[in-house]
Amino acid sequence: MPIKTGTIALNTQGNTDVIDITREVERLVIESGIKSGTVTVFCPSSTSGLTTVEYEPGAVTDLKGIFEGLIPMKRDYAHNSTWGDGNGGSHMRASLLGPSLTIPFVEKTLTLGTWQQVVYIDFDIRPRQRELIVQMMGD
Amino acid sequence: MPIKTGTIALNTQGNTDVIDITREVERLVIESGIKSGTVTVFCPSSTSGLTTVEYEPGAVTDLKGIFEGLIPMKRDYAHNSTWGDGNGGSHMRASLLGPSLTIPFVEKTLTLGTWQQVVYIDFDIRPRQRELIVQMMGD
Amino acid sequence: MPIKTGTIALNTQGNTDVIDITREVERLVIESGIKSGTVTVFCPSSTSGLTTVEYEPGAVTDLKGIFEGLIPMKRDYAHNSTWGDGNGGSHMRASLLGPSLTIPFVEKTLTLGTWQQVVYIDFDIRPRQRELIVQMMGD
Repeated sequence: MPIKTGTIALNTQGNTDVIDITREVERLVIESGIKSGTVTVFCPSSTSGLTTVEYEPGAVTDLKGIFEGLIPMKRDYAHNSTWGDGNGGSHMRASLLGPSLTIPFVEKTLTLGTWQQVVYIDFDIRPRQRELIVQMMGD
Repeated sequence: MPIKTGTIALNTQGNTDVIDITREVERLVIESGIKSGTVTVFCPSSTSGLTTVEYEPGAVTDLKGIFEGLIPMKRDYAHNSTWGDGNGGSHMRASLLGPSLTIPFVEKTLTLGTWQQVVYIDFDIRPRQRELIVQMMGD
Repeated sequence: MPIKTGTIALNTQGNTDVIDITREVERLVIESGIKSGTVTVFCPSSTSGLTTVEYEPGAVTDLKGIFEGLIPMKRDYAHNSTWGDGNGGSHMRASLLGPSLTIPFVEKTLTLGTWQQVVYIDFDIRPRQRELIVQMMGD
């Protein structure tokens, strides 16, 4: 069974930067030569996560607001007290959202909805260079 | 390696309708003829999501209350201001919960706990016809 | 295509006990003999979940605090009223976090970040004996 593993390199702004990676995932699926199967996108990071959203400016703004409401950055975090790195809230947002996303594809096409994009969210508190793992498996 | 892709068609009530899809997933696993592997259930939608829960009326009621508490529908959402469609909160709930669920199966049996059911939650603000993707992979 | 299914047995303290299972998952991946592929970790339980976090005492403390803030245990839950078992909040936390985690591995090595560990969180309100499902698939 074919397995192909690729990566997506990103420069993010941090601070709950919401980045549409749909085209990069689609491209890796097509390049894999695999017709049908699943693609797993994974963040090798503890301060970022993955989900899907309708990628339009309103929903992106709302997403930042939701995370700030649920897990405010300015709260006291034990992680910050210990390490002094100020990104305790980033870690919590990442753990809640989760680091992986698995999407079926059929005939080399992701089974996404019309208004549904794959997004990577970088919760860290500074710009980061990131590399995501994208693994296709199928036949 | 065998891969089989099926669908589950649903008529939902929207408004955080919590629907037990365990039997449909089990049926598709059995029909796939695959003995052991993983099944990925995916929502091709940006206003619904998947998880597991003990599917009894109390927990279903609690789940609706939890989402209303965390992400109230009546708040101001930039998505609503832009598009005037009133389902900004639905999008946020869906992004937080996530669109996919991967479950191992062994000897054609899902590895669920005794009190654990697979549920689809439709957060949209009106009844919807939905079609979920269910992909089995294994040997 | 090889598929191997293993288990991880755990004794937990419940009460949002956060347990690092990275080494056990790594060991099962190596023992599977599969070189590259995905490992799916699954909780056959409706009161526990999986994610990744930087496993250090501060972040673990923060994680407990985040869940208590988002979904307090002492609230009124319909699940508790019906069943009298007091773990309604445990069910809600588990549904929000999700029961499964899929991680790619390459050359028998999980694609985790340097500061990223796989954690199982037991939200139940008493110590539990648990068994997680770990399924490797690849070639």
